[in-house]
Amino acid sequence: MKPRLFKKSSQKTGMSPGTIVHIGEKKVDRVTIEVIEYDESNFTSKRVESIKESIPLKEKPAVTWINITGLHDIDLIRKIGSAFNVHPLVQEDIVHTGQRPKLEDFDDHIYIVTKMIFVDPGLDEIIDEQISILVGKNFVITFQEQKGDVFSAVRDRIVHGRFRIRKLGADYLAYALMDAIVDHYFIVLERIGELVEELEEELLNEPTQKTLASIYGLKRKLITMRKVIWPLREVVGNIERDEIQFFESSTYIYLRDVYDHIIQTLDTLETYREMVSGMLDTYLSSVSNKMNQVMKVLTIIATIFIPLTFIAGIYGMNFEYMPELKWHWGYPAVWLIMIFVFIAMIIYFKVKKWI
Amino acid sequence: MKPRLFKKSSQKTGMSPGTIVHIGEKKVDRVTIEVIEYDESNFTSKRVESIKESIPLKEKPAVTWINITGLHDIDLIRKIGSAFNVHPLVQEDIVHTGQRPKLEDFDDHIYIVTKMIFVDPGLDEIIDEQISILVGKNFVITFQEQKGDVFSAVRDRIVHGRFRIRKLGADYLAYALMDAIVDHYFIVLERIGELVEELEEELLNEPTQKTLASIYGLKRKLITMRKVIWPLREVVGNIERDEIQFFESSTYIYLRDVYDHIIQTLDTLETYREMVSGMLDTYLSSVSNKMNQVMKVLTIIATIFIPLTFIAGIYGMNFEYMPELKWHWGYPAVWLIMIFVFIAMIIYFKVKKWI
Amino acid sequence: MKPRLFKKSSQKTGMSPGTIVHIGEKKVDRVTIEVIEYDESNFTSKRVESIKESIPLKEKPAVTWINITGLHDIDLIRKIGSAFNVHPLVQEDIVHTGQRPKLEDFDDHIYIVTKMIFVDPGLDEIIDEQISILVGKNFVITFQEQKGDVFSAVRDRIVHGRFRIRKLGADYLAYALMDAIVDHYFIVLERIGELVEELEEELLNEPTQKTLASIYGLKRKLITMRKVIWPLREVVGNIERDEIQFFESSTYIYLRDVYDHIIQTLDTLETYREMVSGMLDTYLSSVSNKMNQVMKVLTIIATIFIPLTFIAGIYGMNFEYMPELKWHWGYPAVWLIMIFVFIAMIIYFKVKKWI
Amino acid sequence: MKPRLFKKSSQKTGMSPGTIVHIGEKKVDRVTIEVIEYDESNFTSKRVESIKESIPLKEKPAVTWINITGLHDIDLIRKIGSAFNVHPLVQEDIVHTGQRPKLEDFDDHIYIVTKMIFVDPGLDEIIDEQISILVGKNFVITFQEQKGDVFSAVRDRIVHGRFRIRKLGADYLAYALMDAIVDHYFIVLERIGELVEELEEELLNEPTQKTLASIYGLKRKLITMRKVIWPLREVVGNIERDEIQFFESSTYIYLRDVYDHIIQTLDTLETYREMVSGMLDTYLSSVSNKMNQVMKVLTIIATIFIPLTFIAGIYGMNFEYMPELKWHWGYPAVWLIMIFVFIAMIIYFKVKKWI
Amino acid sequence: MKPRLFKKSSQKTGMSPGTIVHIGEKKVDRVTIEVIEYDESNFTSKRVESIKESIPLKEKPAVTWINITGLHDIDLIRKIGSAFNVHPLVQEDIVHTGQRPKLEDFDDHIYIVTKMIFVDPGLDEIIDEQISILVGKNFVITFQEQKGDVFSAVRDRIVHGRFRIRKLGADYLAYALMDAIVDHYFIVLERIGELVEELEEELLNEPTQKTLASIYGLKRKLITMRKVIWPLREVVGNIERDEIQFFESSTYIYLRDVYDHIIQTLDTLETYREMVSGMLDTYLSSVSNKMNQVMKVLTIIATIFIPLTFIAGIYGMNFEYMPELKWHWGYPAVWLIMIFVFIAMIIYFKVKKWI
Repeated sequence: MKPRLFKKSSQKTGMSPGTIVHIGEKKVDRVTIEVIEYDESNFTSKRVESIKESIPLKEKPAVTWINITGLHDIDLIRKIGSAFNVHPLVQEDIVHTGQRPKLEDFDDHIYIVTKMIFVDPGLDEIIDEQISILVGKNFVITFQEQKGDVFSAVRDRIVHGRFRIRKLGADYLAYALMDAIVDHYFIVLERIGELVEELEEELLNEPTQKTLASIYGLKRKLITMRKVIWPLREVVGNIERDEIQFFESSTYIYLRDVYDHIIQTLDTLETYREMVSGMLDTYLSSVSNKMNQVMKVLTIIATIFIPLTFIAGIYGMNFEYMPELKWHWGYPAVWLIMIFVFIAMIIYFKVKKWI
Repeated sequence: MKPRLFKKSSQKTGMSPGTIVHIGEKKVDRVTIEVIEYDESNFTSKRVESIKESIPLKEKPAVTWINITGLHDIDLIRKIGSAFNVHPLVQEDIVHTGQRPKLEDFDDHIYIVTKMIFVDPGLDEIIDEQISILVGKNFVITFQEQKGDVFSAVRDRIVHGRFRIRKLGADYLAYALMDAIVDHYFIVLERIGELVEELEEELLNEPTQKTLASIYGLKRKLITMRKVIWPLREVVGNIERDEIQFFESSTYIYLRDVYDHIIQTLDTLETYREMVSGMLDTYLSSVSNKMNQVMKVLTIIATIFIPLTFIAGIYGMNFEYMPELKWHWGYPAVWLIMIFVFIAMIIYFKVKKWI
Repeated sequence: MKPRLFKKSSQKTGMSPGTIVHIGEKKVDRVTIEVIEYDESNFTSKRVESIKESIPLKEKPAVTWINITGLHDIDLIRKIGSAFNVHPLVQEDIVHTGQRPKLEDFDDHIYIVTKMIFVDPGLDEIIDEQISILVGKNFVITFQEQKGDVFSAVRDRIVHGRFRIRKLGADYLAYALMDAIVDHYFIVLERIGELVEELEEELLNEPTQKTLASIYGLKRKLITMRKVIWPLREVVGNIERDEIQFFESSTYIYLRDVYDHIIQTLDTLETYREMVSGMLDTYLSSVSNKMNQVMKVLTIIATIFIPLTFIAGIYGMNFEYMPELKWHWGYPAVWLIMIFVFIAMIIYFKVKKWI
Repeated sequence: MKPRLFKKSSQKTGMSPGTIVHIGEKKVDRVTIEVIEYDESNFTSKRVESIKESIPLKEKPAVTWINITGLHDIDLIRKIGSAFNVHPLVQEDIVHTGQRPKLEDFDDHIYIVTKMIFVDPGLDEIIDEQISILVGKNFVITFQEQKGDVFSAVRDRIVHGRFRIRKLGADYLAYALMDAIVDHYFIVLERIGELVEELEEELLNEPTQKTLASIYGLKRKLITMRKVIWPLREVVGNIERDEIQFFESSTYIYLRDVYDHIIQTLDTLETYREMVSGMLDTYLSSVSNKMNQVMKVLTIIATIFIPLTFIAGIYGMNFEYMPELKWHWGYPAVWLIMIFVFIAMIIYFKVKKWI
Repeated sequence: MKPRLFKKSSQKTGMSPGTIVHIGEKKVDRVTIEVIEYDESNFTSKRVESIKESIPLKEKPAVTWINITGLHDIDLIRKIGSAFNVHPLVQEDIVHTGQRPKLEDFDDHIYIVTKMIFVDPGLDEIIDEQISILVGKNFVITFQEQKGDVFSAVRDRIVHGRFRIRKLGADYLAYALMDAIVDHYFIVLERIGELVEELEEELLNEPTQKTLASIYGLKRKLITMRKVIWPLREVVGNIERDEIQFFESSTYIYLRDVYDHIIQTLDTLETYREMVSGMLDTYLSSVSNKMNQVMKVLTIIATIFIPLTFIAGIYGMNFEYMPELKWHWGYPAVWLIMIFVFIAMIIYFKVKKWI
């Protein structure tokens, strides 16, 4: 039902490091490979069946972007691994979808793990999908768990040809892909922002035990998002700071922009976190406030009628010698006393501001 | 109604980076451009219609300050961008009003994002407005979202001519503008200080559920302010530390002064935060205290009258053979017993310090 | 009963430093020594009785792995100590099982303390076992408290001979052993993950005082795990950063992998910690919610019947002159009044949304 | 009434930086200037009317200490400013009493802001007073808000002449003054320590709503003190670390001593803070404990008498055919039943440990 | 009664720095001076009356350990001060027992402040005692507040002569003394561990208001210990890192061992702290749980009998025309109704799982 908090990997225990086993759900039936080549004047895009066709592309001066959707074809990963000289541990990480966002710098390429986030509409849960990016001198390889439209805007800009992206290298493409992922975070943030506002509304009107569950659900979403975005901050910060190879200095200003967006996301998450904790307090306080009101009603009713019932009880006694019972005005007098007690009580409560 | 916690930017998702789209409310109808030129002996100020007129000013040795109010005229931003060689991403940031305060250092100029804060009198909410400052060798360009009087004191000092500002360069002007913004924070802080005192008063007298809402409103204001001021601290600290170009060392002492003010603001915010959290505790404790009092009244009344009613109930029974009912002093005796029980209870409560 | 939170070491107070005393439970009867030698083409494995036999192995170019199970044979430790030139303080630490994970760099070898974690099935407690690793130029010596299968996967890979491990040196063996230990953490994490889910289920259905105890038990487990894993992070990080001797740079990428796993473990622990604290809040809120419901029932019943009983009490009084008692329709009229009061109360509660 | 949490400075908004405006209460009527000159063999002390007389002292090799009490004479500040070449911003800070403790290093002198703390006996509030110290090659100028005896011990030691202070330079005098201020903190700490103990006593005996207010008052005092002392730690630490000019290395050990005292103060504040938070918990728990006791009494009384009253009610019914009413032993039998129920209830409560 | 949280030092306010005043309790009547001299082959130990005798020892190549018990003999401190060239501020710190653990490096010697901790059996409070250690080229001077057996194990090892300590220098002696102090911490930790377990037991069985006080007592003990041990960590860490003079590199591995022990102590303290905070929550939750049970009993009794009493009240009315009263089966019918209501209520509570 609920997405597991961390991907089962105990089945891998004891295996040799670098053993490539797909950990995670199989989200697509068939692995698809899309190869896009472009330079300032040319553009080709094709779907290939096997990775052999794409290897010769490696030597050309143009930029080659290989986008692989679906991670369960271990053979394919291995072929790409040997074609592009990818370390077995990296191959392992590509298919093991429980990685933290990170950056690893090798001689031939750098390996970046990022996470896409989206709200599963059915379950109203945050789902994260691992997207691995290999960046080399003139190629970028992306590995997605499933078909998504997050990269389509980048693809469109390459197709149109009039954008900056066609004039720049693989590093700019890598940036553009990361930017697309981070931009997507804002969509999730907006959905969460709406949830926050809905919950605040609900809290003001009719908070129930279900509201509490929703607040915790929201908190859980924020924790999940933070866990995914926080390490990405370091990844992008590192590229900037350490002058990672393949990234030209003209791309740095764009990376700084992505970095700013990540910081903004984290800022907003932090603000939401504080608001959610305020909501919890409000919920608990409103529950105890209701309790108070219930108690007050009980107290007022009981405090008024218990003494009156006592008075009635007195004159319900069967003693032979009770002179009041014989008095002609006894009954009205008792009524007067009772009304007096009643009014006194009401005034007392008014003074105490209970009613 | 309430200002959104973060500016919608999902509409930008998928656009090419550097695409200049105004994000934020359109707060003025017409964009106005004010150009002020001055050196120690001369001063001119004019409103221009288009930015072309101001470009030749760029080469003069005097200081030129271009103040632009209103951000929705994308064309104008683009013209300024190409006139002053402003990077497309910076142009994007100028019109996208959801930036965090930051400083970016380019060859020709430095770009500073700051935030004005004011209390919206109607909604009693903290509103922040983005003010971008471009500082070059002999010019400063400021971008405001709407007309405000925050810079008028600076303008006045330039007009009067007898102040230090006329003798110093663009870096001092940039400092003076930042100083004006930070000084404005103190006005908001004072308003918040008054709110804190009002709420403390209210807490002591008659706390209601509305008081709780006000406390959370206050907390929210403090979070918003902190979010805006905290990164500014780093911005000003960086200028000082990293010896950013265009800023002369004689200006550093002034920046240190601004830095001190920012730290003071944050200190005060922190103190308010601690006070607000103390207020929350006080509120909750006063609510539970009231509950206690209600419960005590109920307990005292019920504990006194339930046994008395029982006694009355005993002698309301209709058994044929109840000797007490026949006794001549039965009735007064029951009254004596009841009065005794009553007094015993009262003494018990006195001993327990409940009344 | 419960594992003690820290191993008694007061019995050692006042002893000379370097005095080798076994602190901790004696978990095996006989100490066993297993000596494995291998290079790319050869492999021998034997159980030895005494450590003298293994000393000549030290000079060979192949890798020698000496695995010692059981720490109470002080003599053996001392012999190994003098054979491999191990500092007395290190000998002391090997047998004193209360160490924190740490790394110490000596001239002839490095000394690494790690901790195995497993869930004791009977007590449902986290048990940690100290595993010391001595790494030299061409040998690795491991000290385990008891027989366990954590290293068997590594042993198998050495036996099979087709894996990378046979081609690489002692540093890779040390890495493989640490990797096996860290992989084992995930199994414990999964068990804890199940516990978290079970508890969440229990919380939703029928939380009892026992649930609270389980939540604290879980919290205690998380604290224990964190205490053991946190310093290990630094140990592995240090090898990478400080370029510890004996570790070749080609092994660094594997260490980075272990490091990533440790960080993932800590991340997951942190997430669990936040969830457990959320569970606590949920528990307390659900308890107070139940209380609320109980109070409401009491209030509704009391508030309805106390006034009615008062009315009945009125007409139970024995005054001689009570005209209502004589009326023919008095009794039905009282019933009507009572039914009216009853319905009015019910409507009131409906309006207040209490029923 | 209560001291404002931060000094109003909005009245300064828009003024040119370096504009000298006294912010803070005017605490003395007349500004007094005391000039003390000393070297190992000579000592003179006089009150001067105007600052001109003291300027020639500046060149002498002896140490000159000018102590100014009262900050509202802007003219005087300005004269001193030009005589000793004090930067306008520093002049501004001297008279604006809302500064944080800080140290600024100029060519001719260093500027230190410190804060005196004392407990206002009437209001039982922590009051802080700003003391600015200007340290030059052979002079020290101190600016106090009001007359106080904090410096009199230093003055006495100079007068007596047999102390170390007469043999050493202006840096030692500056140290001695800071030491005097920090020593004063301990007096305030002791007063707070007494308050803590009084409150703990009160909590154990008879906590009331007023106790809660006192706890928060204490917390507020601790916050105020921490806010003032924390930055001072950095000030003194900086002198030591950065080898600030005018301070000779032989003075460093004395500064380290002051530093240690500040750390001790902060340690003690931290301990008090933890104790105060424990007191809050104790208070809340004792309130809820009392509530529990009240509830128990109510429950016991009601639970005993409600069933008994019901029994009495049964035999108060007026059915014609109620055989028990005719029985001769009916009435005693009912009493027996009631006594039995009573005793059963009491035993039940005893078993439940409620009484 | 309770040990004061910080030693009174206000009596020192205004004194010249370096004024030697004993602050703290006078814990022994007579100050004793023990002088131990040893090298690999010789050993002498004597009690001396005055410090003059020990001065000539200073020049010998053997190690001299002077152990002074009792700090109130100011003259003695001063004599040692001038004999060993101890800075007046250090002399002041030796006799002022409120110091934080620290290390100060002088030309002739280093000065280390440490704290012994023990549990006062009568008051069950943590008492700390200041132990100052002066380490020079070939001497160590220790200052204890009172007679204790913490150093006797070190003395024994020197006497026996077969231990490493006789072969090594003053730095090893200083290490051995610090090690003895830190080893002692574990004894206190064990006592606290027992307290934790006792309290956990008590919490499970019969928590009372006294349990709460014990929990806070425990918390206070942990705070005190942490305050004393935390700075010691830095002291030992500094010796290692900064290569303090007099300490030879062969001693560093021993210091690292002490450092590890301190970290272990702090780790355990942290774990205890988390457990104590869990105990607080458990206590509060168990209190509110009891309250719940009390409320349930009240509710069940009241909810059952209030309606029944009402029914009885109905037929206790004295209307002349109440047909039910005349019915022959009226009385049994009422009983049937009442029993039905009773059973219905019980079923309702069963369904609600209240009983």
